[in-house]
Amino acid sequence: MSTPSLSLERVRALRAKFRTELYDNVLPFWLENSLDHEHGGYFNCLDRDGSVYDTKKHIWLQGRQVWMMSKIHNTVAAGKSDSTYLQAAQLGAKFLRKNARTKDNRVFFSLTREGKPHFMQRKMFSECFYVMAMAEYARATGDKTARKEARTLFESVLEYAKDPSLLGRAVYKGGKPVSELAVPMILLNLVEELRDPGEQAWADVEKWCVKRIDLHIRPELGLVLETVGVNGELIDSPEGRLVNPGHAIEAGWFLLAYAERNGLSELAATALKMIDWSYNYGWDNEYGGIYYFLDRTGRSPLQLEWPMKLWWPHCESMVAFIMAYESTGDERWIRHFDEVTDYSFDHFKDPRFGEWFGYLDRRGDVSQRFKGGPYKGCFHVPRSLFLVEQALGRVEEKLWAQKTASKGQ
Amino acid sequence: MSTPSLSLERVRALRAKFRTELYDNVLPFWLENSLDHEHGGYFNCLDRDGSVYDTKKHIWLQGRQVWMMSKIHNTVAAGKSDSTYLQAAQLGAKFLRKNARTKDNRVFFSLTREGKPHFMQRKMFSECFYVMAMAEYARATGDKTARKEARTLFESVLEYAKDPSLLGRAVYKGGKPVSELAVPMILLNLVEELRDPGEQAWADVEKWCVKRIDLHIRPELGLVLETVGVNGELIDSPEGRLVNPGHAIEAGWFLLAYAERNGLSELAATALKMIDWSYNYGWDNEYGGIYYFLDRTGRSPLQLEWPMKLWWPHCESMVAFIMAYESTGDERWIRHFDEVTDYSFDHFKDPRFGEWFGYLDRRGDVSQRFKGGPYKGCFHVPRSLFLVEQALGRVEEKLWAQKTASKGQ
Repeated sequence: MSTPSLSLERVRALRAKFRTELYDNVLPFWLENSLDHEHGGYFNCLDRDGSVYDTKKHIWLQGRQVWMMSKIHNTVAAGKSDSTYLQAAQLGAKFLRKNARTKDNRVFFSLTREGKPHFMQRKMFSECFYVMAMAEYARATGDKTARKEARTLFESVLEYAKDPSLLGRAVYKGGKPVSELAVPMILLNLVEELRDPGEQAWADVEKWCVKRIDLHIRPELGLVLETVGVNGELIDSPEGRLVNPGHAIEAGWFLLAYAERNGLSELAATALKMIDWSYNYGWDNEYGGIYYFLDRTGRSPLQLEWPMKLWWPHCESMVAFIMAYESTGDERWIRHFDEVTDYSFDHFKDPRFGEWFGYLDRRGDVSQRFKGGPYKGCFHVPRSLFLVEQALGRVEEKLWAQKTASKGQ
Repeated sequence: MSTPSLSLERVRALRAKFRTELYDNVLPFWLENSLDHEHGGYFNCLDRDGSVYDTKKHIWLQGRQVWMMSKIHNTVAAGKSDSTYLQAAQLGAKFLRKNARTKDNRVFFSLTREGKPHFMQRKMFSECFYVMAMAEYARATGDKTARKEARTLFESVLEYAKDPSLLGRAVYKGGKPVSELAVPMILLNLVEELRDPGEQAWADVEKWCVKRIDLHIRPELGLVLETVGVNGELIDSPEGRLVNPGHAIEAGWFLLAYAERNGLSELAATALKMIDWSYNYGWDNEYGGIYYFLDRTGRSPLQLEWPMKLWWPHCESMVAFIMAYESTGDERWIRHFDEVTDYSFDHFKDPRFGEWFGYLDRRGDVSQRFKGGPYKGCFHVPRSLFLVEQALGRVEEKLWAQKTASKGQ
């Protein structure tokens, strides 16, 4: 970490803001409204005020909430067997393990309230979030079976990534193999989530992920692309021209974390570029906020929701910018951090009921009033607040050490 | 038809407006830009100015364009073997028949430019538009094989409608069987498209469709719902609360046409209610235009694009209102017709390049500049202009007959 240039007071105030938002406004919303004590698991379709508007349980969100609750427990109450967070994690983990998995290592996309299978996607992301859940849950409980379950399922995920036809999606003659940014970025993150301290497993997977992500980083365009050919060919189609700035920024901080852990300064610089390009390209200069989708040639994206402002790209940007600042000490990142934090707290935060709104129109007005749905739950907002608060803690510590050292001179 | 109250001059002016838009602004756009003389079929992904932004060929649109070109040919050039429209229909029909169908009676969702399979949906709509194409194409060409092909594939579609697991979509314990409005409405329309004059086939299918549609019409709510239980149970979930006003209006005119053909005046009254309720509920009193999706309890729909104004609900409304007027002679329908026609010509029509824009934001600003995409092609705009022009022709004829009769008195 470079020398931080912020004042200790500023860092402390910021940290308090994030801590308050996380522990007083966001986590209580989920703890009070989502726990299904009757059937287990979480209600993830919650209206603005926390009331349940659909009892279906979507596995992406069940898995992510188990992860989040376990993570918070491991941070604020590690070792305690009766923390609220641990109990919440257990409620979800038990439901997942009982209902979400098939005999042949697939994971459903959605279940009924009671846990009956409802829908299966031809994608591998339900499996990924199941792995993530069990990895962190095992740490919270010391449950070795959960740890093993995460690792076994991850091996299946690696197979799915290699051969998507295993997910039931036929591969046709006219469907050329492509590289989707989502795949290497989530695998890179999962390795990080699975590994115990000092463990070296899956280094080959990480290297493959870094290579793959690199195909998507295009200095000739100054952009990160969602889809390229498997040898990095540019594809001239709506898919091949698609830019998802929030996704690229998230991939950027995954890569930055990897580079920092491994002391790879050139790769860290590349990760910073990913973040910088994507934010500059994705920011709406007229109304503020980060566009959901863009076409690199300025055409209209096919996605009808392209100009909307979604919560998660903003959450990911806050994390990316504080990490970039921590890594470089460059104040430029703090200016970006302030811009996206101000926009987020002004637009997404609900002053009345806790948790954040998820979906704004281009102008920044709330378009969907619910707090949780099939793709939004107890994850991006608390993860972002948590990671930013942790990073600010490290910055604060460093500033304090500096101050103490200078007094001692 | 009741006595029309419009003036002959007004009807003639309206008819000319629709005729000009159809033959001078809309059909030329497709004839000039979509025909792929090299590989056959149509480019359906066309930017504002008609340039191709993706060479993939989406079967919904290939089938619909074959239908539209055949329909126009059968109306303006029937019997001629060299009309532009017939040649265009042949280009698409040949491509479809060569490439779109599998050995086991499924139809792909998309092909490459050359006709290689690209993607298959777990839905039956590609099959439906293939049937529609071949039925009208057979009439344009007298090709008996095409006629038979349409009928054979329609029998498969009926099987898929009864048992969706044939489409590769597993039916899980937690997925209760539901009735989706899309299924009976498209089958009702396909029977109409398939039948030759005087033919009585599939009357049982029509009766099943009418019964099914009736489950979706809810006088207790004054609304038409997209999804209900198979015995008409209200479902309290986002799917069960969903209202798609444009879809309900389209179903309304399909049902009105059926009722008129069969002299069922009570059913015609029900169809008119469907149209009336859905338009009133769907109209945006603040910015004008018809919302894409609404939730019957006022919650936020899950669809991110819910407040957008799409071209096709407006196209369907113009057809529904002119048919309702033709059926009842009630001027109220002309007021609705004028409202939605004015909105459409003001907002969707492109004064520069022909064909209409498809996607506006809530305020009515163009959100997607392209004219054709995976779900928009040579269909809703020209079909609507064509059907309205035809209806106005019948009204004009009646007014002329009245005038002549009164002169003769």
